[in-house]
Amino acid sequence: MSFQFSERVPKNDSDPVGDILKVAGSPDVISFAGGLPAPELFPIEALKKVTNQVFDESGREALQYASAIGYPALRQQIAQRMNKQGIKATVDNIMITTGSQQSIDITAKMFINPGDTVIVEKPTYLCALDVFRSYGAHIVGVEMDEDGMKMDQLEKAVAENSNTKFIYTIPNFQNPTGRTMSAERRKQMIEIANKYDIMIMEDDPYGAIRFAGDDIEPVKFYDKEQRVIYLSTFSKILAPGLRLGWIVMNKDLMPKYSVMKQSADVHSDNLTQHIVAKFMSEYNIDEHVDKIRKVYRQRENVMMAAIEKYFPAGVNYSHPEGGLFIWVEVPGDVDTIKLFNTCIKHNVAFVPGEPFYPDKVTPGTFRLNYSNMSEDQIQTGIERLGSAIKETIEQNETSSVAQH
Amino acid sequence: MSFQFSERVPKNDSDPVGDILKVAGSPDVISFAGGLPAPELFPIEALKKVTNQVFDESGREALQYASAIGYPALRQQIAQRMNKQGIKATVDNIMITTGSQQSIDITAKMFINPGDTVIVEKPTYLCALDVFRSYGAHIVGVEMDEDGMKMDQLEKAVAENSNTKFIYTIPNFQNPTGRTMSAERRKQMIEIANKYDIMIMEDDPYGAIRFAGDDIEPVKFYDKEQRVIYLSTFSKILAPGLRLGWIVMNKDLMPKYSVMKQSADVHSDNLTQHIVAKFMSEYNIDEHVDKIRKVYRQRENVMMAAIEKYFPAGVNYSHPEGGLFIWVEVPGDVDTIKLFNTCIKHNVAFVPGEPFYPDKVTPGTFRLNYSNMSEDQIQTGIERLGSAIKETIEQNETSSVAQH
Repeated sequence: MSFQFSERVPKNDSDPVGDILKVAGSPDVISFAGGLPAPELFPIEALKKVTNQVFDESGREALQYASAIGYPALRQQIAQRMNKQGIKATVDNIMITTGSQQSIDITAKMFINPGDTVIVEKPTYLCALDVFRSYGAHIVGVEMDEDGMKMDQLEKAVAENSNTKFIYTIPNFQNPTGRTMSAERRKQMIEIANKYDIMIMEDDPYGAIRFAGDDIEPVKFYDKEQRVIYLSTFSKILAPGLRLGWIVMNKDLMPKYSVMKQSADVHSDNLTQHIVAKFMSEYNIDEHVDKIRKVYRQRENVMMAAIEKYFPAGVNYSHPEGGLFIWVEVPGDVDTIKLFNTCIKHNVAFVPGEPFYPDKVTPGTFRLNYSNMSEDQIQTGIERLGSAIKETIEQNETSSVAQH
Repeated sequence: MSFQFSERVPKNDSDPVGDILKVAGSPDVISFAGGLPAPELFPIEALKKVTNQVFDESGREALQYASAIGYPALRQQIAQRMNKQGIKATVDNIMITTGSQQSIDITAKMFINPGDTVIVEKPTYLCALDVFRSYGAHIVGVEMDEDGMKMDQLEKAVAENSNTKFIYTIPNFQNPTGRTMSAERRKQMIEIANKYDIMIMEDDPYGAIRFAGDDIEPVKFYDKEQRVIYLSTFSKILAPGLRLGWIVMNKDLMPKYSVMKQSADVHSDNLTQHIVAKFMSEYNIDEHVDKIRKVYRQRENVMMAAIEKYFPAGVNYSHPEGGLFIWVEVPGDVDTIKLFNTCIKHNVAFVPGEPFYPDKVTPGTFRLNYSNMSEDQIQTGIERLGSAIKETIEQNETSSVAQH
């Protein structure tokens, strides 16, 4: 039969990022393309131990249907963690989700009518863009610098789009740029949101993985009018395979969120919720996060040093103080796909910048991940990448001269 | 701030079923309201054993990000199971979801544009109605009898609604009625779908829980044109807390489903997918399902006998050959909410029929669940329910006489 998809489904059947990850997955290729945490850091023995306890102590409860908004003991643990991080919250403000992706999806479904404007950092998390588009959002990108979204341009974008529903921001070690929004701009963002009476979706999967500089309070810390929907996840601080995230919200929103969550998947995996709650009561998760931060700091340092050594002059890159990603900008109108193909010949891979842009793409941009590779692989991979960049720049200059 | 929800969010903040389950949850009340499997049948020791194996053998893989469409070994196990049940399928036809609710949600999101018609059994699963409404569907209910949807009325509904996207059906031991569609009508449904070139969403969470009569081939068995999207789940045959379901589809649809699944929650809990795949390779799940069927058969028999003994003459009820539910129709325009309140005074509860109807509600209807209560509780509860029904019918007749 001929299937007629809804308007929410992308017309295009291509999956550029999927194709890239497939090519990058070849055993010869050193891939900085994914966004995978280091699996050797997963606390497997500890999780195994608490899982046995869950089966022994509350197996029937953990395997049964449960509350849409999540397991109360886990929500309680998260509330405590949130308060330590500058977010006033009780269990009544917290809903468990099947990972941050679902938090984004449910929030978008609840608030975006077709044609509503969503303002995002440019570039930003590509799967958030996919979600916003699927609900018919008009997406407006705001330029960033090293301190995050530029506030004058943000205010201009809000003022020009009276139907703005919310600002979507990843304030810490942003995906894909690795940049962090300054405290001053966080305050300004709240002021703008207050002035124009709009919401903010603060997506913070990486905030706990800071390995340099000082912690900065979340945007929600400055939010006196409870307009910030704050999202975080266990994916980067524990294990992404568990698909557990959470939303901190104005508690008046909980009944609607509960209805929409029930519609989405009834509730998140209850066994896993029990496992993670038990893990947090039996172990100090901050000690575990410290281990992750140390390893990622070391890997980032190795990547930075290799970039300085092997990349040609003129290439710009971000200097993340945490998270998983470095953003690279190669000057001179380089075609990123051509660069990617050259890299594959050199057996190294990244994610090209294109899919992270809501509108006009900056050429020659790409994202590097350092969390999932050994220090040796990082050294070798960046050396290959440096050669590929030089080769591409030279070809580009030659063809550019030829055109004149 | 004043939050402006999208059109997808129900305007009404009331949650009648939630309120009912809250009242029914009182310790004095015998509740036939929920749809919970019997937790004493969960294979806790077996699951614990295979979970330890998963942590030992493939902990890193199980805790890491994974494929959107699901763990290949689990999809393989499901494909084998599907073939035994009359559905030709390979791994390429199967996507794992976070429970059947998500299968319904993703399918609805992918195919329903606002104003498109979805045809459903009347009454039907209320959370499917919620999903269809959230995407702006025009829902048309088709009357049923003991053999399922009436086919002449189905064809009339399809013919009258040229924008029909799909028929949503629960062919086996339907929720809420417990009724099963005959083989003849399944064939007819496919013929109608072929004739009008529309899809069928076949939701089959209960099919394996048959405890009387003969198995009937799924609607998808008759589907030569691959227009049936078949949904099932581990919720009723293993444990609902695990939130794992699957979709069997035309493999041409897989790329779009994969994109939409990734947007929804990246993928379903990977640890749990590994646990269930291991359970299915180490144990015979059919032996486990046999245990469930025996217990539910016994509970249904006890409930049936009690109904025959305690319900007043004239009350109709379905005679399910499997699944979890019996549907009751009290004659004489009885107000179901009034009946519910009388039942609560008698310390017994059910789910009133109202929310299961897409449009006009049949008064005096309600759903009983027998899977989650002991035989003693079923006996006592049905006795109380019989008294409450008699009391309500008498009051109704008195007030009806008074009005004349």
